[in-house]
Amino acid sequence: MARRTGRRPGNPGTREAILDAARAAFAERGFDAASIRAIAGTAGVDPALVHHYFGSKDQLFLAAMQAPVDPRELLPTVLAGDPGGIGERLVRTFLAVWDSPAGTAGVALLRSAVSNEWTARLLREFVVTQVLRRVLHHLDVAPAELPLRGSLVATQLIGLAMIRYVVRLEPVASAAPETLVASVGPTIQRYITGDLPPQRDSAGS
Amino acid sequence: MARRTGRRPGNPGTREAILDAARAAFAERGFDAASIRAIAGTAGVDPALVHHYFGSKDQLFLAAMQAPVDPRELLPTVLAGDPGGIGERLVRTFLAVWDSPAGTAGVALLRSAVSNEWTARLLREFVVTQVLRRVLHHLDVAPAELPLRGSLVATQLIGLAMIRYVVRLEPVASAAPETLVASVGPTIQRYITGDLPPQRDSAGS
Repeated sequence: MARRTGRRPGNPGTREAILDAARAAFAERGFDAASIRAIAGTAGVDPALVHHYFGSKDQLFLAAMQAPVDPRELLPTVLAGDPGGIGERLVRTFLAVWDSPAGTAGVALLRSAVSNEWTARLLREFVVTQVLRRVLHHLDVAPAELPLRGSLVATQLIGLAMIRYVVRLEPVASAAPETLVASVGPTIQRYITGDLPPQRDSAGS
Repeated sequence: MARRTGRRPGNPGTREAILDAARAAFAERGFDAASIRAIAGTAGVDPALVHHYFGSKDQLFLAAMQAPVDPRELLPTVLAGDPGGIGERLVRTFLAVWDSPAGTAGVALLRSAVSNEWTARLLREFVVTQVLRRVLHHLDVAPAELPLRGSLVATQLIGLAMIRYVVRLEPVASAAPETLVASVGPTIQRYITGDLPPQRDSAGS
């Protein structure tokens, strides 16, 4: 072999070392700024080995977050079809994931995010880069409005998860998914495609 | 008297000293880790006096929660005036509380609620009995619809708090309050007074 990294690919613990380094990098630098090369360096392995184990940077990120689902597999269902129905489809898909066994991991992720700034940062990066960016770039929305629309969508979806799965406030906690799709879908739709107020930051208030 | 605590029960300021200590303990340590004994110690009183004033730890917790954000003082502002503006007024009042020093205790409450079922229960009781019930009973809404409307309002408000104060996703995290009032107010308005789907529980789905 021409290249030696000092660790054999099969070395037990190598995979975990890469994931630890990835978690640190994504949380500290954000998804876009974190590089496979730097993560490999921290873990003491060759970058090729990171790709070998985890594939793309997206996939490494999902593995590092222990994300129970890959948004790239779910989003085509949401994005296909009438743009006027995207709000309802997003809520329907969201509930299908959370109502499945994967929802347990989702609740664990929420718990971790609120008690730990590092996880909160990872969750933020996940929501923005893996979900919202993909949904919103697919649509005919002014780029300058994407961040506000995206984070408004996030307020409603994270709140739905909190009330249904964590606080378990009735009747949302045990409502039929389609009741929630019909109730919350129009909210999401408005945040994505409806009229929003001109944006100001708090310095301008 | 068989027992002396160094302060007479009627000492002015004793009650406030206990509430201040409780608020600090609950905010810093969360509901579970905060103890009546430690709170009494901080306030310089006997633990029995805390029980005498407030009853159980639950009751003390609710008292500590209500002191900075007593819904009975805030809700008249929300409820007064045009019923069509109640959504915006509720969001405006909600943000004013969370943007104030009381918001620190709110974040601690959210953290505690997601990691602990007991606190989640307290939060649920607080939201339902202190806020939603008062808002919704004031309005001309079919009683059978109150629980769904109330818990939908809760999804949007708890999500707004999560994204703005815990996950801190931009631009919601630092948006001017009025941007959020204009964005989220119509959602709350619709949940309170708008058309909602016929309700089914999950058994009927």
